[in-house]
Amino acid sequence: MSLTDLLLGRPLATREEGAERIGPAAGIPIFGLDALSSAAYGPEAALTLLIPLGLAGVGYIVPITASIIALLAIVYLSYCQTIDAYPGGGGAYTVAHQNLGSFAGLLAAAALMIDYILVVAVGISAGVGALVSALPRWQPHTLALCLVILVLVTLVNLRGVRDTGLIFLVPTYLFVGCLFVAIAAGFAKAATSAGHPVPVVAPPHAMAQATVGASAWLLLKVFSSGCTAMTGVEAVSNGAKAFREPTAKNARRSLTVIIALLIVLLAGVACLVRAYGILATDPGAPGYESVLSMLVAAVAGKGTFYYVTIASVLIVLALSANTAFADFPRLCRAIASDHYLPDSFVTRGRRLIYSQGVYVLAVFSGVLLTFFGGITDRLIPLFAIGAFLAFTLSQAGMVFHWRRVGGPGARRSMLFNGLGATATAITVGVVLVAKFAEGAWITLLLIPSLVVLMTTVKRHYRRVGAEIASAEPLDPVEMRAPIVVVPVDGWSEVTRHGLRVALSVSSEVIGLHVGSGKQTDELQTKWRKLVEEPMLDLGLTGPRLAVVKSPYRFVINPIVKYVLYLERTNPRRQIAVMIPEMVERHWFLQFLHNQRGSVLKALLYLKGNQRIIVINAPWYLKS
Amino acid sequence: MSLTDLLLGRPLATREEGAERIGPAAGIPIFGLDALSSAAYGPEAALTLLIPLGLAGVGYIVPITASIIALLAIVYLSYCQTIDAYPGGGGAYTVAHQNLGSFAGLLAAAALMIDYILVVAVGISAGVGALVSALPRWQPHTLALCLVILVLVTLVNLRGVRDTGLIFLVPTYLFVGCLFVAIAAGFAKAATSAGHPVPVVAPPHAMAQATVGASAWLLLKVFSSGCTAMTGVEAVSNGAKAFREPTAKNARRSLTVIIALLIVLLAGVACLVRAYGILATDPGAPGYESVLSMLVAAVAGKGTFYYVTIASVLIVLALSANTAFADFPRLCRAIASDHYLPDSFVTRGRRLIYSQGVYVLAVFSGVLLTFFGGITDRLIPLFAIGAFLAFTLSQAGMVFHWRRVGGPGARRSMLFNGLGATATAITVGVVLVAKFAEGAWITLLLIPSLVVLMTTVKRHYRRVGAEIASAEPLDPVEMRAPIVVVPVDGWSEVTRHGLRVALSVSSEVIGLHVGSGKQTDELQTKWRKLVEEPMLDLGLTGPRLAVVKSPYRFVINPIVKYVLYLERTNPRRQIAVMIPEMVERHWFLQFLHNQRGSVLKALLYLKGNQRIIVINAPWYLKS
Repeated sequence: MSLTDLLLGRPLATREEGAERIGPAAGIPIFGLDALSSAAYGPEAALTLLIPLGLAGVGYIVPITASIIALLAIVYLSYCQTIDAYPGGGGAYTVAHQNLGSFAGLLAAAALMIDYILVVAVGISAGVGALVSALPRWQPHTLALCLVILVLVTLVNLRGVRDTGLIFLVPTYLFVGCLFVAIAAGFAKAATSAGHPVPVVAPPHAMAQATVGASAWLLLKVFSSGCTAMTGVEAVSNGAKAFREPTAKNARRSLTVIIALLIVLLAGVACLVRAYGILATDPGAPGYESVLSMLVAAVAGKGTFYYVTIASVLIVLALSANTAFADFPRLCRAIASDHYLPDSFVTRGRRLIYSQGVYVLAVFSGVLLTFFGGITDRLIPLFAIGAFLAFTLSQAGMVFHWRRVGGPGARRSMLFNGLGATATAITVGVVLVAKFAEGAWITLLLIPSLVVLMTTVKRHYRRVGAEIASAEPLDPVEMRAPIVVVPVDGWSEVTRHGLRVALSVSSEVIGLHVGSGKQTDELQTKWRKLVEEPMLDLGLTGPRLAVVKSPYRFVINPIVKYVLYLERTNPRRQIAVMIPEMVERHWFLQFLHNQRGSVLKALLYLKGNQRIIVINAPWYLKS
Repeated sequence: MSLTDLLLGRPLATREEGAERIGPAAGIPIFGLDALSSAAYGPEAALTLLIPLGLAGVGYIVPITASIIALLAIVYLSYCQTIDAYPGGGGAYTVAHQNLGSFAGLLAAAALMIDYILVVAVGISAGVGALVSALPRWQPHTLALCLVILVLVTLVNLRGVRDTGLIFLVPTYLFVGCLFVAIAAGFAKAATSAGHPVPVVAPPHAMAQATVGASAWLLLKVFSSGCTAMTGVEAVSNGAKAFREPTAKNARRSLTVIIALLIVLLAGVACLVRAYGILATDPGAPGYESVLSMLVAAVAGKGTFYYVTIASVLIVLALSANTAFADFPRLCRAIASDHYLPDSFVTRGRRLIYSQGVYVLAVFSGVLLTFFGGITDRLIPLFAIGAFLAFTLSQAGMVFHWRRVGGPGARRSMLFNGLGATATAITVGVVLVAKFAEGAWITLLLIPSLVVLMTTVKRHYRRVGAEIASAEPLDPVEMRAPIVVVPVDGWSEVTRHGLRVALSVSSEVIGLHVGSGKQTDELQTKWRKLVEEPMLDLGLTGPRLAVVKSPYRFVINPIVKYVLYLERTNPRRQIAVMIPEMVERHWFLQFLHNQRGSVLKALLYLKGNQRIIVINAPWYLKS
């Protein structure tokens, strides 16, 4: 077993993927993880903004959470409609593209791509936030921890994830279970203490003094940040086709349970935060502790239960980043199939994974994490816009869908989806205005840039398509064999093999040696004895050895020059450059060789033309 | 002008480099920058460790600086000897390798490589430290700023730096000039106020209370950290051959001035820190301010002079990172020429730069910066060991050199170099012990790992060399033209060109189409009309079109399978796979195409053998 295999898994054969369909129970962890894990950072994002209000601010969390839950209910009804209409999977890109045209589709695509990148960044940073809450001395290494987890998740996804069901099942139910136990215990204590429970571990109140008063503007910002708790609810509708028959009904059941669980989590956290008077702590500063950490510690103390809960939070958030790694490359592939993104997003790598998408997602989320220091709170203003814009476009698309389809329930369905579209569109506006200066402008800038990029790519492909289109027949005259140039460093098995291949392709072969001095003289003697004489014995004039001097011991440039010279002096002929390459059986040894061949090929392509071709003759090392 | 050209500069022709030699005055900024810039972090590194002693600790900086200056004087005398003996350039790798054998050479090489990586990381982080001292609100973005500067320096070095003299001249003299003015002004104020000058801007004294007493152990650690001020003094001796005749004399003059300037800087800073009672601030925490920043502000206030000085500190430190980018790839090249590192370190890129070395340096220093959060103080314990180990090996090598050479002054020279070797060896030991737990263990682990890696690489090359060695003559029988497989997506100019090239190489050509349905049927019709019929007109049987179905629309795997099948069923024949590639005239468009060709080639190499070759036929797009 080689190191690649160990790290990335053996190459997978192309066989049918995911033949089994799932039921509603299995659908909850698989498609609900993303939405449910949002409960780990949504309420905290809202509470962080209430810090300046001191203890008085904590009370506002309950009405704000109530309005978020109301919005969530509307979105839920909307998505039930989408599932009915698109049981084969109704992602925002598909729905917007089909019903509102290609521009809306691209807008949704751009919004979703940015959303996925943020899901990864926020998921990981919030997970690390939980970790450093439990282990405060790791707090200075927040960013490094984020990047380590990102690399791990990326590697796992380059391996390709198959049976993910079970991996998702345990931590999701553990997460929900732990939080439910904590919420229930907290409510019980609150009930028995007339609403004023005594915390087991008191939350830190370093900043309990109010420095400003509440304002409508501040509450708008709190609502905007809290809305991040709703990201991920579209997952069921996107992946509906994974459910077994009756598909739509099973998917709707899953969605219902997921939304119900999320509502209980959000409402429970909000009420207990008020009951225990938990203030958010300054994110990124020493002494930071996440709201969930303080909440669980206040209810149950910092014992085993606390550490199990925090571990489940970390795992669930890391897995939610993982779902983005599963979905983002598929989305890119769908867009690239329509030629709005480079073809390479459609090419599968060695593990049947759209590797390009994985790389892009990893790099961009890594950049985001680095620039915002791995602090969730700084990433939040960028988030939510993409998600809510996609909600809006998807729901608006559904309205047009129902109008087109018509039929009995169409008016009612249009009403629900219209309500959803309106509510989420208003939210997009609110978030944009409230969070503009804090970072929403970045998202607002990126989305149109992406749309422009995608249309440019499409236009380029169209132009290239027109340029290479041909109805001309093959013109099979004047097809002389090429002049083959074989760069020769010294006499070896590799050179010998390369020369044989060259002679099999053409009778005009030139060995090309760059160098001077004793080594070159030796090679010339060998060439006469080992190459030209055996050829003469067969009555053939052998390949000659051309020698080029290079005062600074550069090798590649003189070869390129010689080839270009041959090309100029032999018009109408093809010039083939044979690159004899050593191939190691282990990929990690490969980087010890061959760079010269790649540089030579790149330079020839850069300076050459259609009459210069490159032949790679591999020579396999046994070791 | 293309985007690459703008970013990386046009490809350079291979012409003589750096014909002009420099005099001692030009040598000071070019070779002194590294050593002089150390004054920006060395004293601070020592003072940071004195924080727990409170104001009482500041007094210790003077005797400790005195001992560092004494060590510096010994090293200076040693290096004057090295310059005399190696006027052609006496880097530690060369000197140790030639005089102490290959193992010592590798040890020096490993120490130097790690040292260069740390020069980059520490230079950039200390520069950013200066920046956030002047602009405190950028302090939370320390790491991001470090990484941005790293990327900029990397890009500049991928461009290749030519006339660097002037770029170095201005900021180096500005830096030295500003600090000299500040030191002179400080001394004048101290003299007129009986040693107790009143600071213009009082340094922050948040932690002025002593929490521990002074101990020998603590002072040893302070000395170890302060020794980082000596890094970079070997530059003149390494690059001696750049000086004009009399080379050795000019180089020694430059070194003398550089060391004198450095001593004045270190002594001046130490005395003024005590006079003004400047305490270091907690690095990485909000409110951090560098010692130089506090010093200049105390002497001259935060006016124009302050900002000019801080700007010169930032630039000089960034440039010192830049010198590592110039030296590290050259060192790697020297090691790779002896086959201890992969050949690719010897290959020059498009700008005559050893690009591989630049990448490696950028990646490793980026990783270091990330893991230590861009905080100089956390990097310091790793530093100095590599530099002092290289000093030691180089000086020890010189002792053996003199013993071998003999002659009149040899005994005296041996004495100086022996003194240098002993003093630096003791320092290595002191630094290792004092800083072991804080991070020196990382360096201690890395150096032998690197040595092992390099010997492994060498052994591998030796084995490969033995495997491919050949004295066999070319065996020019049984060289039939290969069977050429041309993957065909549809009929286009690219396909047409590819087929013509294939037919010029062999008469046995097979078009291979992966697909099914209407598109495939159309292609088959076209093939008969556009390929087979024109061939028949010439009395030739045309290349046939093989069609392979692929249920999941994968293209690459079916091609690989087909080629492997051909290879099995045609023993003793070569199979050539023709990859018709579109080449864009602009590199940044290239990524829109061609990935499939690269993946196909990689898979064929992975699963193939010597009888499978790859032919790349470029087709140039006009646009």
